[in-house]
Amino acid sequence: MIQAGIVGATGFTGMVLTELLWAHPKVRLGPLTSSGYVDREVGDVFPHVRVPGTYVDYSPEVVGDCEFLFVCYPHAASHPVVGQLIDRGHRVIDLSADFRLADEEAYQRWYGFEHGRADLVPKAVYGLPELHRERIATAALVANPGCYPTATILAALPLVRELDIGTVIVDAKSGVSGAGRAPTATTHFSRVHDDFRAYGEVGHRHTSEMLQELRRVAGKHVGVSFTPHLLPVDRGILATVYCIPAGGGGLLSEEALVHLYEEAYAGEPFVEVVAAVPSLSEVRRTNYCRISPRVDEAAGLYKVVSVIDNLVKGASGQAVQNLNIMAGFLETLGLGASA
Amino acid sequence: MIQAGIVGATGFTGMVLTELLWAHPKVRLGPLTSSGYVDREVGDVFPHVRVPGTYVDYSPEVVGDCEFLFVCYPHAASHPVVGQLIDRGHRVIDLSADFRLADEEAYQRWYGFEHGRADLVPKAVYGLPELHRERIATAALVANPGCYPTATILAALPLVRELDIGTVIVDAKSGVSGAGRAPTATTHFSRVHDDFRAYGEVGHRHTSEMLQELRRVAGKHVGVSFTPHLLPVDRGILATVYCIPAGGGGLLSEEALVHLYEEAYAGEPFVEVVAAVPSLSEVRRTNYCRISPRVDEAAGLYKVVSVIDNLVKGASGQAVQNLNIMAGFLETLGLGASA
Amino acid sequence: MIQAGIVGATGFTGMVLTELLWAHPKVRLGPLTSSGYVDREVGDVFPHVRVPGTYVDYSPEVVGDCEFLFVCYPHAASHPVVGQLIDRGHRVIDLSADFRLADEEAYQRWYGFEHGRADLVPKAVYGLPELHRERIATAALVANPGCYPTATILAALPLVRELDIGTVIVDAKSGVSGAGRAPTATTHFSRVHDDFRAYGEVGHRHTSEMLQELRRVAGKHVGVSFTPHLLPVDRGILATVYCIPAGGGGLLSEEALVHLYEEAYAGEPFVEVVAAVPSLSEVRRTNYCRISPRVDEAAGLYKVVSVIDNLVKGASGQAVQNLNIMAGFLETLGLGASA
Amino acid sequence: MIQAGIVGATGFTGMVLTELLWAHPKVRLGPLTSSGYVDREVGDVFPHVRVPGTYVDYSPEVVGDCEFLFVCYPHAASHPVVGQLIDRGHRVIDLSADFRLADEEAYQRWYGFEHGRADLVPKAVYGLPELHRERIATAALVANPGCYPTATILAALPLVRELDIGTVIVDAKSGVSGAGRAPTATTHFSRVHDDFRAYGEVGHRHTSEMLQELRRVAGKHVGVSFTPHLLPVDRGILATVYCIPAGGGGLLSEEALVHLYEEAYAGEPFVEVVAAVPSLSEVRRTNYCRISPRVDEAAGLYKVVSVIDNLVKGASGQAVQNLNIMAGFLETLGLGASA
Repeated sequence: MIQAGIVGATGFTGMVLTELLWAHPKVRLGPLTSSGYVDREVGDVFPHVRVPGTYVDYSPEVVGDCEFLFVCYPHAASHPVVGQLIDRGHRVIDLSADFRLADEEAYQRWYGFEHGRADLVPKAVYGLPELHRERIATAALVANPGCYPTATILAALPLVRELDIGTVIVDAKSGVSGAGRAPTATTHFSRVHDDFRAYGEVGHRHTSEMLQELRRVAGKHVGVSFTPHLLPVDRGILATVYCIPAGGGGLLSEEALVHLYEEAYAGEPFVEVVAAVPSLSEVRRTNYCRISPRVDEAAGLYKVVSVIDNLVKGASGQAVQNLNIMAGFLETLGLGASA
Repeated sequence: MIQAGIVGATGFTGMVLTELLWAHPKVRLGPLTSSGYVDREVGDVFPHVRVPGTYVDYSPEVVGDCEFLFVCYPHAASHPVVGQLIDRGHRVIDLSADFRLADEEAYQRWYGFEHGRADLVPKAVYGLPELHRERIATAALVANPGCYPTATILAALPLVRELDIGTVIVDAKSGVSGAGRAPTATTHFSRVHDDFRAYGEVGHRHTSEMLQELRRVAGKHVGVSFTPHLLPVDRGILATVYCIPAGGGGLLSEEALVHLYEEAYAGEPFVEVVAAVPSLSEVRRTNYCRISPRVDEAAGLYKVVSVIDNLVKGASGQAVQNLNIMAGFLETLGLGASA
Repeated sequence: MIQAGIVGATGFTGMVLTELLWAHPKVRLGPLTSSGYVDREVGDVFPHVRVPGTYVDYSPEVVGDCEFLFVCYPHAASHPVVGQLIDRGHRVIDLSADFRLADEEAYQRWYGFEHGRADLVPKAVYGLPELHRERIATAALVANPGCYPTATILAALPLVRELDIGTVIVDAKSGVSGAGRAPTATTHFSRVHDDFRAYGEVGHRHTSEMLQELRRVAGKHVGVSFTPHLLPVDRGILATVYCIPAGGGGLLSEEALVHLYEEAYAGEPFVEVVAAVPSLSEVRRTNYCRISPRVDEAAGLYKVVSVIDNLVKGASGQAVQNLNIMAGFLETLGLGASA
Repeated sequence: MIQAGIVGATGFTGMVLTELLWAHPKVRLGPLTSSGYVDREVGDVFPHVRVPGTYVDYSPEVVGDCEFLFVCYPHAASHPVVGQLIDRGHRVIDLSADFRLADEEAYQRWYGFEHGRADLVPKAVYGLPELHRERIATAALVANPGCYPTATILAALPLVRELDIGTVIVDAKSGVSGAGRAPTATTHFSRVHDDFRAYGEVGHRHTSEMLQELRRVAGKHVGVSFTPHLLPVDRGILATVYCIPAGGGGLLSEEALVHLYEEAYAGEPFVEVVAAVPSLSEVRRTNYCRISPRVDEAAGLYKVVSVIDNLVKGASGQAVQNLNIMAGFLETLGLGASA
């Protein structure tokens, strides 16, 4: 039995973490901090969450005796607090982007901020268990991956690792909860409902994580073209990932491709390789990533569809998976069912 | 050919008015004011609206030569501007609640503000053409009705006028655009989508308009219990209105009831009495109100379902209908089709 | 440990029952029958359901050794099978309407069929635990209530039992799953999405259950006017229930009303009396019914809002609650969390 | 003034055609045929359509005096009727796929049927005005393009014509109305709502049109990988089209790319080249196609987003555009506003 608290507990990721930790058989739910909701009850802020508890203002003291802490602050705002907590001996799972990139210069380029705790960057482990399980187990600081990179990297990983893939085109579609709980023009119901749009940016920030991990795996340069789209649904990401071989050469057969994926994820508790192309509802409120790979012979490329719940495998569920690994628990504990 | 401008043109009602006036065969679109979007183009703010034009800051001068002005300010903020415009000789259609109530004391009770232009209150005409067409024709100031009252009054009117109805129970369901364009917790996609709720308040402000007009028509006290609900759709109101006879007595037959409604609305261009219970989509982007009355013999009451588009017949379309009446145009001009 | 099977397992109620029984700590999932899906796997028919198992064709033999059986057939089709199972000594929870009405004549009137097993009608217990817990415990045949009646009866019960209520007006709004899994014009996405409608019928079949149970509780005649509406959501019912006192007299104070409800449901594990008006999402995938009562002093009536998930407390969850009672288990077993 | 009728008028495309032709200033609405709705009124079948008229059963006689006929039958069922009408001297716009492919063998390969009127295949003109305006003007038989090909070809056309593009990856997302009005498992609200899926097929039928037209324009082989997805919206297609240069070479600058598109569509009344990435709502109920091209320098490709309303520019609106061209009318007549 361990204790785990949440710093910044009233965003969407904090909300789902609260539910997951409360139901976790080996976790005692620690302090829930939130500057905007001090003294308010959980069920008052989130009427569908039946968890007792009251939000408190963050201070190092208030989380004093908590072994594990999840930090759910926005990027740039997260690393000072994470640093403070690491300095005081806590083990931290950071759900922001502040420690996901191994190159400290990259934060300026992709996120536009100077990293104040560059000393910790090399110590942080990128928290994708399917890639870094062993290092996560002993890490003091885990950088929980972004939602888009999780869906994308898992979709492309076996191909990029085994074949010579030159370009990965990621056409990803996300529910609105990915944009956070703050009301903005982007999240207004009248703008999203019955509509659909691309963000259209070339060079979305999450590209940096995809490039970093896919190149690490490939051991060479891989091009990534990433386009996020906004779906009129609340939760879920579907990524259609086109993997284009670098050289001429032939393609794997459909059978060999499926075999490659099944082998790659044989032991993984939360990756399901399926034949029928999956939909968002198949993984909603679960920590699963479902993947269906195909060969497009005529066009000379591979087409892989993956789905996750952006708030579970794309954020809070994966964070609990990381907690389980760090604490030496069974990796599926508290994640077996829904969330 | 007249000129008509819009003061406060970048809310939802201003947006729809812009479309309607632009397409109106006898209106030259006048100034569009909006403090938050000065110098921005219409199509830049509303990409689906293909109307040329640029927003300007409001001043009495900027609207100087415009005979008709629509004011789309929030309640309490509207009456000072309306007063100023009336003083300068414009004819005004006010889409706020600031001149809807005939009793100047009522503003404090229902809306919590002291009316700064009580002198104009007796001169304002409640702009429901089906009730006050003649007075609208010559009015300098028309108070455009609220969306819920429009749907409700039209549903209950024939029964309340002809029979002795004691209580009217209004169970109304509205799309999100009724809550306005400002991003708030209430309008966040993740809160509204795939959900449904009552506002639950006893004593919603729009009750005041319903009471005022239904009592005026009945010539006696009528009780109104009004409950608004929030639908996960953008546009439309459906009101299920239960009219409970005051005395014991018998009920009209189904046939007599339908006859009563058909008679009442025989000459009305925008009220459709139908047999099949209507749905929101049947009136969306139109200025129609569709009404289906029924007798519930076993329970001893009448049940009337009405639907409108809250932004058209419930706001901007009705405002243009009022403009047509004030200008002496054919009442349906510019409203024949969709909006 | 008991065994429980499902006859007619591939409709929506069968689907949710499959999930609930699989996760139930004291139930071994028995045969799942479905004539249309023989030999197909559960996860093949419902890709989001991770339950092993294969559908079989129904026969008395195939369910031979199963103590408890849930029957999820349409009304009129259900009672012959239920009768056969009862004759063979099974204990049955019937999710159809075929045994809900105590008066065997009523089936002809409300449902248009002649009851072929009138002998069993007096033995069936109406499976609303909040009303009939003790009789359910020993019943061989439980008639699981309809979704609308569940939401309505729980909302009106305390008032109807304690005060002299003359008329109950039920304005209920349901998600589409209530219309079943068969594709019809009514369930076509393009008809439901972004739309809203009343069914408009006066005299919907579910009225019969409301009348029966509310009159039983009141010990006198109570009028019920029931209007169902179709929401563009998948799951959930919100009922706005207006309770109109029969005599003149005064109304309870808000405080006394809340007290009445809290007392009435003090020991109930699945009824939550709340102050804030609830929304569908607060009970989705749970077996809870949330209720918020109000006094509308000005209109002289009580207004009670209740919400349930139509597939859980309105069908399969309540069926499992009944199973728990029949089997002598803790009533919340397997229902504690979501579904 | 011409007369135009609709054969198969009660599907979605027939429904929108009915609205458009009724409002068209130079068209007299001719017979509306529908075997399933004989003698039913338009407004009875489509309550939101306020067009007088009654459906009749199809026969060559019933459409006898109608110069122009739109045929809205499913593929394979269309060509016999189209052939009959052409033989009798009508000019026909066929909304099915039965005359879209220039190679008569291709129907067997892509659609699985033997073409019964191969004699007419060479005479049919592919009805994309932006490519074949002149031939449409004099055609007796116009094959109205598919919805996906319309969005895709317009997005890729300038690049494929001017540069050496080797592969075009089409990631397209469509509303449900594209699947037709028949209730099926695919169109059930509970399956589509709050969900999102790829169809996943490699080799969707619409690929054939894209290949045919893009290769015709390029004058060489171009690879097309097409993946359709199903959005939880009713109307609209958004295509994200990735154009990958064949050779190594450099890319156009962003400025040159935009210039290329603006030049290509300079005179087109229904193609809008825009800077901000468009969304479905910007073209809904209009005949516009909005296109936004980008350069993805890092990944070495072009990314073009296009949106249309699948029932208007993707079907019935484009059909009316073709009618206007065939009849020698102003091309925008009856299409200026919404539909």
